[in-house]
Amino acid sequence: MRKIHVENLEDIATGAAILGTGGGGDPYIGKLMAIQAIKEHGPVTLVDPSEIEDDALIIPSAMMGAPTVMVEKIPKGDEPVNAFKALEAYMGREAYATMSIEAGGLNSTVPIGVAASLQIPLVDADGMGRAFPEIQMVTPTMYGISATPMSMADEKGNSVFLHTIDNVWTERLSRTITVEMGGSAIIALYAMDGKTLRKACVLNSMSHIEEVGRNLRMAREKKRDPVEAVLTTTKGFEIFRGKIVDVERRTVKGFARGKARFEGLDEYRERRLVIDFQNENLMATMDGEVVASVPDLITVLEEDTGLPVTTEGLRYGYRCVVISMPCSDKWRSKAGLDLVGPRYFGYDVEYVPIEERMGRRR
Amino acid sequence: MRKIHVENLEDIATGAAILGTGGGGDPYIGKLMAIQAIKEHGPVTLVDPSEIEDDALIIPSAMMGAPTVMVEKIPKGDEPVNAFKALEAYMGREAYATMSIEAGGLNSTVPIGVAASLQIPLVDADGMGRAFPEIQMVTPTMYGISATPMSMADEKGNSVFLHTIDNVWTERLSRTITVEMGGSAIIALYAMDGKTLRKACVLNSMSHIEEVGRNLRMAREKKRDPVEAVLTTTKGFEIFRGKIVDVERRTVKGFARGKARFEGLDEYRERRLVIDFQNENLMATMDGEVVASVPDLITVLEEDTGLPVTTEGLRYGYRCVVISMPCSDKWRSKAGLDLVGPRYFGYDVEYVPIEERMGRRR
Repeated sequence: MRKIHVENLEDIATGAAILGTGGGGDPYIGKLMAIQAIKEHGPVTLVDPSEIEDDALIIPSAMMGAPTVMVEKIPKGDEPVNAFKALEAYMGREAYATMSIEAGGLNSTVPIGVAASLQIPLVDADGMGRAFPEIQMVTPTMYGISATPMSMADEKGNSVFLHTIDNVWTERLSRTITVEMGGSAIIALYAMDGKTLRKACVLNSMSHIEEVGRNLRMAREKKRDPVEAVLTTTKGFEIFRGKIVDVERRTVKGFARGKARFEGLDEYRERRLVIDFQNENLMATMDGEVVASVPDLITVLEEDTGLPVTTEGLRYGYRCVVISMPCSDKWRSKAGLDLVGPRYFGYDVEYVPIEERMGRRR
Repeated sequence: MRKIHVENLEDIATGAAILGTGGGGDPYIGKLMAIQAIKEHGPVTLVDPSEIEDDALIIPSAMMGAPTVMVEKIPKGDEPVNAFKALEAYMGREAYATMSIEAGGLNSTVPIGVAASLQIPLVDADGMGRAFPEIQMVTPTMYGISATPMSMADEKGNSVFLHTIDNVWTERLSRTITVEMGGSAIIALYAMDGKTLRKACVLNSMSHIEEVGRNLRMAREKKRDPVEAVLTTTKGFEIFRGKIVDVERRTVKGFARGKARFEGLDEYRERRLVIDFQNENLMATMDGEVVASVPDLITVLEEDTGLPVTTEGLRYGYRCVVISMPCSDKWRSKAGLDLVGPRYFGYDVEYVPIEERMGRRR
């Protein structure tokens, strides 16, 4: 058990953006919301999953929608608390703590704001160990845990509760509601007890996020190679260095979908990389050959600073390093790959762990 | 207070289809569901609004969606009860009675099934005195009554609860959910107390529906003019006689929209009538001139039987009489016309009550 103060948020937001693999919403907004809540209500207690009672109720809090929209539709600040408390009221029970459902971008920091505002603990865990675009894409789905009851709220004051037959139906219904709410919504879902959380979630991911952000910051302060610091902390691999030459981006059915094209520099001269994304980066293809894919993490870093570039931030001319990091082992099972493997996203490609791909290349 | 038996349902369904102005869903399915529920559980007590306690809770029950879809996606039978009980549970209170939110088609008989299954009373009233396509189009909206809390259920087992800032937002969110649920949903909404009901609803409309159906049946049995029987009972007017020569119909955003074209017969020879519909018939235009419009009722009857033809049942070659009937006075106020007048539906036309139009013509 330790405290999260305002001073920790910069590192958390940076680390969250790196593990957000381009998506998960702009961490800048989430960071501001969390800072404001901590300043108003005090620091947040981060509890280790091992410290939670078996029957303690944990309710994750998050935003849903295309990051494109979230950037333009900044929340007023109290919606996450409202959606969280609405679900508590619906369940007729107060939660012991909240947590992140995805360790990426905005959704790493949204629960910090909720925890600060309500002065309840934040659990050091999440449901992905990264960011993914759809509701059912969390490790708890593999353990038969229902996303519902789920509450949704918009900034206008509308709220919705869902009870569905499975997590794919939760995704279908909540996505269409999110679109109608204007492209983004605040949600509370995947309520579970402490015992379930320890079994079904990715543990200590909040600490890992902060470590990633901290090591990057320290490398920059000490003028060491910032990209190298990220790779060391995440056990990741550099897969490309180049300049962005083209970005296609469109909002389809509530998702930011598109492709980013890179032209190689240095040792990658004459080579080309394409990244496909759906909110998050899904596939990296070099000269027609897949070099990294979901569920492993693919993140674009600025070459000089090592800072992550979200799919929304991709711009012509940026000099970048594209890295890939191994995902949680939970995703590498048959059930995990059925949920978030390349084939689920429509790519007729076998998943090969990034360590193995890089081993072959060497 | 009186009982509704299986024997009453034929007249109720016929009357409901006439006041349904082409929409409100196929009364045939609703009739079957209600008959089955009465056979299983016993007759339904119809209570007069004057007999209800001021603070008694009444929860209307209905189906939502394009009638086109409902015909093909017949409910299993227990969904209306499930949606109704889900709303009771959500509100933490048992309802004294149910009622129809629209006196038209399927939605006149759906609550009869619920009342029979749960052996609770049915109130002799509704929220329109006819059928309308959108959720906010009920007289209670004019009295500031919220459609939410609203429960929605599909035949697969998914359920949704809404809490919205106004009834137009209820329409927006529930429509998009209905489409995602496959085009139709079972709903419970506009919970209100007895005192509010007496002020805000159209009273005794269930009895009126049955009277319309009964008088038509008796005219047919006695070989009297069936259309005349309908006109007398509803204070309606014949506005056209002719053959259907063309029907355009498409499902757009969860609505059945289209136009039906008629070629005149007898005194209407050489004249043409066009009916525009959105689930329900909205406008009747003869040779380019509006002859009847919402909120007055426009219904197509078969010439020989006087039986109503729904917008789904319109077929090339049918010989029909098109009639228009005056709507509830509540709809003729400024607030009523803002909600359901021609301009709301996109027609730049002043509403003129049908009695006045017919007076001018004579």
